[in-house]
Order: sequence, then C-alpha cells, then structure tokens
Amino acid sequence: MRYTFLMSEFESRVRVRYAETDQMGVVYHANYLIWMDIARVEFCRHLGFEYREMEEDGVVIAVVEARCRYLYPARFDDEIVIGIGVAESTAKTLRFQYDLRRAQDGHKIARAETMHLYLSRTDFRPIRLPEKYHSGFRVSSG
Amino acid sequence: MRYTFLMSEFESRVRVRYAETDQMGVVYHANYLIWMDIARVEFCRHLGFEYREMEEDGVVIAVVEARCRYLYPARFDDEIVIGIGVAESTAKTLRFQYDLRRAQDGHKIARAETMHLYLSRTDFRPIRLPEKYHSGFRVSSG
Amino acid sequence: MRYTFLMSEFESRVRVRYAETDQMGVVYHANYLIWMDIARVEFCRHLGFEYREMEEDGVVIAVVEARCRYLYPARFDDEIVIGIGVAESTAKTLRFQYDLRRAQDGHKIARAETMHLYLSRTDFRPIRLPEKYHSGFRVSSG
Amino acid sequence: MRYTFLMSEFESRVRVRYAETDQMGVVYHANYLIWMDIARVEFCRHLGFEYREMEEDGVVIAVVEARCRYLYPARFDDEIVIGIGVAESTAKTLRFQYDLRRAQDGHKIARAETMHLYLSRTDFRPIRLPEKYHSGFRVSSG
Repeated sequence: MRYTFLMSEFESRVRVRYAETDQMGVVYHANYLIWMDIARVEFCRHLGFEYREMEEDGVVIAVVEARCRYLYPARFDDEIVIGIGVAESTAKTLRFQYDLRRAQDGHKIARAETMHLYLSRTDFRPIRLPEKYHSGFRVSSG
Repeated sequence: MRYTFLMSEFESRVRVRYAETDQMGVVYHANYLIWMDIARVEFCRHLGFEYREMEEDGVVIAVVEARCRYLYPARFDDEIVIGIGVAESTAKTLRFQYDLRRAQDGHKIARAETMHLYLSRTDFRPIRLPEKYHSGFRVSSG
Repeated sequence: MRYTFLMSEFESRVRVRYAETDQMGVVYHANYLIWMDIARVEFCRHLGFEYREMEEDGVVIAVVEARCRYLYPARFDDEIVIGIGVAESTAKTLRFQYDLRRAQDGHKIARAETMHLYLSRTDFRPIRLPEKYHSGFRVSSG
Repeated sequence: MRYTFLMSEFESRVRVRYAETDQMGVVYHANYLIWMDIARVEFCRHLGFEYREMEEDGVVIAVVEARCRYLYPARFDDEIVIGIGVAESTAKTLRFQYDLRRAQDGHKIARAETMHLYLSRTDFRPIRLPEKYHSGFRVSSG
C-alpha cells in the first residue's frame, strides 16, 4: 500500500478508552476504524454540515474499502490526533487518508485510507452527492 | 440485588473473542450485556420464532434496565454458557434472568437480569406484545 | 432499584459515535457501561490522579456489579453529559452513581450505579486502597 | 488492492450480533476485522494449536496491516462464513487472506487481507516464530 499522503486538512482527537484495549495491553486494532469514522464526522462538521443531516437527507457515505497500516501501539488513556484529508472526490466516490499520531509526542501510530460510495439511504443504491455538498468536499466537476 | 433465580430454561454459548478482552487480561465487563442479548435472540429461536421477524412485525424488545453481578473473570477463548430464563412476563413487560458459567468447569462468572418493554418499532411507544408471541413467552393472562 | 442519588460531583462528556448505534437507530445499551467507565477515569483525573498510574501501582478498580436504568434513547452525534458521584467509599469498596443527560436539552437518558472492589493487578485478590488515594475518594476511616 | 486469492483453507462461522449493527441497519464495518480475528484463532485450532498457548509461550501475532473491501452489507442474525487462507508465511511474517460470505446463499460480502509480524509478548520486538509452529503455518525455509 503506497500512500502519497496529502496534507492533512483537519485534526480530530480521541482519548483511548479502557474498553478499547485488549489483553496485549494496547488498543485492539479494529478500533482504529471507529476513530477514523469519528474524524470523518468531525471533518464534515468543520466543513460546515452535519453528517447526521446528510443521512436525514437520504444520503449515506458507505465504506467500500478500508486499509490501515499499524505502526506503533496506542495505549489506554493516550490522546490520539487523527489527521484527515480528502484524497479524491467525485460526485459518486470519496477517498480519505488518515495519519494517526499520539498527542503527547507526535509519535505516529498508523496511516490509513478509506474509500466511500454515496448511497441512497432507503435502498443502498449508488447515487450522486447532492450539489449542496459539492463545495465542501471539493467535488471535481465533469 | 436479590436474585430468586428461576431454573434456566435455555442455554446459549459464546466463545470469548480477543476483542472482548481488556488490558486487565480479562473480558471487559460491558461485553456481558452483549452476550445476554445473544442469549435472548437464541432463546427466541428456541421458542419457535426469529427475533428478526418480530422486529419486521414492528415490535422491538427494548432494554429498560440491566443489572449484572460479576463473580469471576472470563478470559480469552473461554467458552461461556449463558443460562437464560423468563422471570416475569406480561403483555407489556418482560424480565429475563441469566446465569453465566465457564463451559470447561461450570465455574460461575456472573448473574444478571434485564427488564424489557415492548415498543413500536416506528415511534418507540410502549405496545402490547402481539398475541402470536404470547404462548412462547408464557404471557400471564389478565 | 432505588437510587437515592447524591449530588453529581463531576461531569464527563462523550459524543455518540456511529459505531455505538444499532439498527434500532439508537445507542446500543451496552455502550452506556463504557461511557460510565470513561466518566470514572475523567473523575479520577479531576480528583488529582491518573487511573493509568493507579494500575501501574498495582491496583485495579474492578467492576463487581453494574446496574443501569434506560430512560430515553440516545442518538448518533448527541452529546451526552455523564454526571458521576461517589455513593459509598471504604478502603476496600467503592460505589459510584451516574446520571446521564443529553447536553442539548438536559433530557435525562439513564441512571446507573456501579460497585467496585480494589484488586491486586497481579493476582486479582481484594486489597485495601493505598493511603495516598484515600483523600481523593474520601474513604471513611475505621 | 489486488487479491490473488488462494484457495481458502479453513472456514469459520459467526452469527451477526445485534450489537454489531448500526443505524444504517447493517453491520458496522469495523466488526469485520473482529470476525477475521476469530477466523485466525479458529484456524490455529484447526492447525493443531491454541493461539492462547502461543501467547503464553511469549509470542503474539501482531496485526501490522489490514485491508478490507466491503462488497455487500451483512445484516443482523445473518450467519457469515469466513474463509481464511495463508497467503505468505515466513519465520518473521504472516499474511492471511479472507473471503466472507453469507451462509444462507453464499453471497459474497467482503474480501480482506491482514499482514502480521511475530512479536515478543514482553517487549513487542519482532521475533522469529518458534520452530514448533513452522509446519502448521507452512513456513518456507531459508
């Protein structure tokens, strides 16, 4: 997996929950996907809209692919900074990249990428992102 | 919390997932509530109906109270037997009791209880359990 | 379950994660136990010590009982205020009470209680809380 | 992500838990990583050893990369078949591939891959897989 990482456009923060650790004494790996989801929701808010309202509008941003490279373990009570950026954006698809670091010392803990399709909330068919969200996600025209 | 425990009417089994452990090296306590939920779904199946269909019929069995007494830690890869019984059943409410044991030696790990209300799936208002489920849950008439 | 609720001594906040919702469209009930755990950790920090360090000192605050009464559903992206207070505190046991509300309108979503024992981190045997934490948790002498 | 998928060598099964669904009415995507973990543990058992014992021997199989392509939503109570195969195996690294299908009709729901390093359980340094596990994982000599 090559990551030609764009500059991170927004940062979200989470503090590691006890429930997120496992018996290895570190964060269980599946939780990173949850953190990236949190970063997407916060990023939407930063861009000026609520993801919750987008769903009420009938659009869901479905995850169609996720990749995560784990670089260093995160531990209970660590504060994690999740840098997020849009790597690709069309009216039908969206790709985010992520850069996860420990807040205390900037130590990088993971890099990741998620690919998304816009789907109709009612029947899960692919749809075009409504115009009103295009500028937020910088949808390339054409 | 006193538990005047009824005889367990059904047993469900789960095997402890790595994801369910925490850095204490044991199962994180919130997971027991998930296991009890699994036991309820399997118990419904045992009683002759699918909880999934009940929801499609417009009825949800909402949790209004949960209590769990943790007696002994469960560990990764342990097989857990969840004994479940109906402690109280009316057309509007339902109360289950649970008895969690380790399969390998019968060591008791927890006792628990959940209280439920039947709600309409569309507006979350309390409703009466449809007649067709009454015999399964032995709803007391009157 | 009667709750003679003490005044809440500290408030912690969480924002509902997408991962915490279920197909009923509300927060899955087991997540409330995770939120209460977060409140305990933040409360410890407020009292002047890190729960992480307490574990490094060899002491774990094990959950021996948890009760939660669910009053109103919480939804995705809601901000939840978790009021927490010490209901009982001795050198061997600790009892917390919780009051969960929606931040936007103060609507109460749950009341809860957890009972704890201090255990040795190495062998899980009950121990007395080390003196240095007594004032923080207002351990009653004797 | 190209998957030159090997024949699946073992199949593990999970039934979708209510807790694993989200408000979209389908399984929340992070749970697939947990299911793959379950398949690894069951696969080890099938190969003749307990992953639990491997950790007790001081070896952890750490996840260093995970990729998942989501093809079709899984729903509550669906039974999922997780096909797993070893794609690459050396004394230091291990790569698994997965093929997730719905049991009822064989409908494919996801394809995935995880990369692993063997680490010492005490200090998380990369180590060589102990000889006794080589034949199970068909470690290529040299």
